[in-house]
This record gives sequence, C-alpha cells and structure tokens, in this order.
Amino acid sequence: MRVRNKPWAKDKLNQYSQYVISEPEKHKGNWSELFGNDNPIHIEVGTGKGKFVTEMAKANPEINYIGIELFESVLVTALDLILEDERPNVKLLNVNAKDLTDYFAEGDVDRVYLNFSDPWPKTRHAKRRLTYKTFLNLYEKILVKGGEIHFKTDNQGLFEYSLKSFSEYGLLLTFISLDLHKSDFEGNIMTEYEEKFSSKGQRIYRCEVKYQNEK
Amino acid sequence: MRVRNKPWAKDKLNQYSQYVISEPEKHKGNWSELFGNDNPIHIEVGTGKGKFVTEMAKANPEINYIGIELFESVLVTALDLILEDERPNVKLLNVNAKDLTDYFAEGDVDRVYLNFSDPWPKTRHAKRRLTYKTFLNLYEKILVKGGEIHFKTDNQGLFEYSLKSFSEYGLLLTFISLDLHKSDFEGNIMTEYEEKFSSKGQRIYRCEVKYQNEK
Ligand SMILES: C[S@@+](CC[C@H](N)C(=O)[O-])C[C@H]1O[C@@H](n2cnc3c(N)ncnc32)[C@H](O)[C@@H]1O
Ligand SMILES: C[S@@+](CC[C@H](N)C(=O)[O-])C[C@H]1O[C@@H](n2cnc3c(N)ncnc32)[C@H](O)[C@@H]1O
Repeated sequence: MRVRNKPWAKDKLNQYSQYVISEPEKHKGNWSELFGNDNPIHIEVGTGKGKFVTEMAKANPEINYIGIELFESVLVTALDLILEDERPNVKLLNVNAKDLTDYFAEGDVDRVYLNFSDPWPKTRHAKRRLTYKTFLNLYEKILVKGGEIHFKTDNQGLFEYSLKSFSEYGLLLTFISLDLHKSDFEGNIMTEYEEKFSSKGQRIYRCEVKYQNEK
Repeated sequence: MRVRNKPWAKDKLNQYSQYVISEPEKHKGNWSELFGNDNPIHIEVGTGKGKFVTEMAKANPEINYIGIELFESVLVTALDLILEDERPNVKLLNVNAKDLTDYFAEGDVDRVYLNFSDPWPKTRHAKRRLTYKTFLNLYEKILVKGGEIHFKTDNQGLFEYSLKSFSEYGLLLTFISLDLHKSDFEGNIMTEYEEKFSSKGQRIYRCEVKYQNEK
C-alpha cells in the first residue's frame, strides 16, 4: 500500500481514543469489558482504509470488530469512516500483527479476517506473508478453540501458497471459492482492494479454514 | 463422456490381453511380476481415450502405468494408442474404480492420477465423484504409505469440492496451481479433455495431495 506522509495522522488517531485504542495491552484477556458486552470478537489483520471492518460492523451489530493496521496514514481513513456513523462495535488498533499476543490472550478472538494481504511474491520474503506458519501460530494463540480464518485475495500466487500453508499447519478447509463474484456466496462485503481489482475483471479468491484444536 | 455403441470393442480388448489385462484380480499383490520389474506403479482412474497414460509411459520408461476405464468404447482408443508404439510399461484395465481393492493390494500402487473426472455437479450425486471420501479411502487401501493423488480438472466446482474433501480426509496439499497453463509447471502432459477445454480458453486447475499415514 502506498503510504503518503501524513504527520498529523498520529495526532488524529490519539484524539479519538474511544475508537483507536491507545494501550491495547491493557485490554488483553478483557476486551469484552471495553465493548461492554460478551459478543464475539472478530479481528481484521491489515485493515487498510477500513471499509470492510466498518461495513461489517453495520451489517452485524451483534459482533464486535477490531481492525488492525500498521500505518497511521491509512488508518486515519478508517477512523473517518467510523466517525461518519459512530458504532459501538468497531475499534481500531494501530499495531503490528507480529505482536498480536501482546494484546490478545487465548480465546479473546473468535475469528480472524485477512483481506488482500500483501503478497510478498519473492520466496525469500515468504515469512512476511500473513499466512506464513508463524502467523498461523500467532492466530491460534489468540483464537478460541476451533477458531476460523476467513481469507480473500485477488493474488493467485498468495492464494495458492496460503492453501498449502493452511494444509501443512493442519487447518481444515471448510469453504472455498475460486471466483467469489461469480459464486452464490451471499452477503459479501467488499474491501477497497476488492473493489479496485474486481472492477478490473480480476477474480477474487476466498476461503475459510478452521483450527482443529477443539478436543 | 459420450459413449458410442461399439459392439466389437469388447472383442478387440480381449484380443490384446498383453495390454488389456483380462483377469486383474489374479495380479493383486503381484503386479511387479506382470511388468517384469520392481518399478513404481502409477494408475490413472478414468483414463478415457488414454492419451495421458500412453504419453506418460513414453516420457517415463522407469514408471509402470495402468489406465483404468469403465467403458470399452473409449478404452479401445487407448488400446490403439498403445499399439501405435508398443511399450512394456503401460497396461489397461476395463473395470470400475469402485472395485479397485479387488485388483490391488495395499502398497501395490505408488500414485493415483485423476484427470478431468466426471464432475457430478448435483449435490445428491456427490458420492459418485472420484474425490468423494469413499474413493479417497479406496485409494488409501491400495497405495503405499505416504502415497499421492495428482488431480487435474477444468471444472471449478469439482476442484473446489475436491480441495475440501481432501482437507477433510486429512490429506496434505503439497502442490496447487489455479492456472496450470500459465504457470511454470514443467513436463505437463495434456489429456484429451485438457486439450479440448484449454483450447477454448478454460483454466486448468491442478493439485497434488499426499496421505499422511507414513508412521
Ligand atoms: C494490500 S493492503 C489491503 C487493505 C485492505 N484489507 C483491503 O483489502 O483493501 C494490506 C494492508 O495490510 C497492512 N499490513 C501489512 N502487514 C501488517 C502487519 N504486520 N500488521 C498490521 N498491518 C499490516 C498494510 O499496511 C496494508 O494497509
Ligand atoms: C470426463 S472423462 C476424462 C477422460 C480423460 N481422463 C481425460 O482427461 O481426457 C472421465 C472418464 O472417467 C471414466 N470413469 C468415470 N467413472 C469411472 C469409474 N468408476 N471407473 C472407471 N472409469 C470411470 C469415464 O468413463 C470417462 O471415460
């Protein structure tokens, strides 16, 4: 994602600390208190400009959403979307996904969304892909038993890689579409990248996988 | 596959019993003797007109191939291909895949190829798909430990279904291409269906999965 230099972004994020959680480690094991209810918590890792997470929050008021994004400069746009229509069930974190276990305890999270994650096409960068085994291990550490990852991308190489990585990790494939926008999948909410790539005629790939650690 | 009535087909298959094995149950546990060597045995289930299995036999003289096909009327074409260029490492069986364990003992087979298997798109026909769990169980019973299935198809629905079925069965996904003819996969040998569908611009899907029963 192209990152424009926005020196004021950090200040703006700090200003709306009811939406952009400033000390997330303080809520570890305790996110329900912050949301004021026991509803399931779904996180999106690499939220970007936040279209997905904010529209999901509107469509599903009984789910709590947390959008996680490294760059302030894109996260301010997500904040603007939230401010357009203030909802209690969506929060943002301006952190690095590699530190997820600093902010979430085992069982804090019910589902992980990965949308149009950076593909890192070079083999020597495979470790940076959000579907690399170390990330799958991080998600397992914060998810409920039998928790799920829902993954969408237009990138064929990343999708192929991820299916192998999921299989090798022992995740169960419960849903797959190799052409989401021509399938009968209902209630799809498009991300910014999804709008851009699908309007160019690119196929969108989508799958759901489940941790098999329920016993 | 459209099956033309060819009453002479059965006679012709019987006539070439060095290629079309007439009493395969007699070779159960003993196929190496028939081939006269200990080379690995790869079978193709649903061989059709035999282009794949005969060209594979030419390309890989150190592998023994067996093409399995239900219909005499198409298998005669496979026989004609063999007769064009007689090879000791390719045989045909005119049998139903559901009876595989009548003809092969555990460990007789090193690899199963499924190419452009009938898709059976209706959910109520799922049991007939050659990647349904009962078939995966049959293949497991005749394969070596850690044996593999290599699967190609143009049919998106069958491929999606099969990936889920493989995952649920506990098979490990070791290779996947979502657009084989645009990938860097080398040494691909096209089947009749593959030639037909790829010339119409259809994508070809391919994967390799492995039984995780090695311990
Ligand atoms: C290609 S964009 C996709 C954005 C959005 N999900 C969409 O579909 O439109 C990927 C986003 O993931 C973010 N990202 C990448 N690695 C991250 C990490 N380790 N932690 C947090 N965010 C990350 C990037 O900054 C970028 O905004
Ligand atoms: C769609 S054709 C594909 C033929 C060839 N593999 C190709 O790719 O060109 C599928 C073939 O599988 C055969 N077949 C289907 N079910 C079978 C079974 N249970 N046992 C043996 N052959 C079967 C059909 O008769 C047909 O010839």
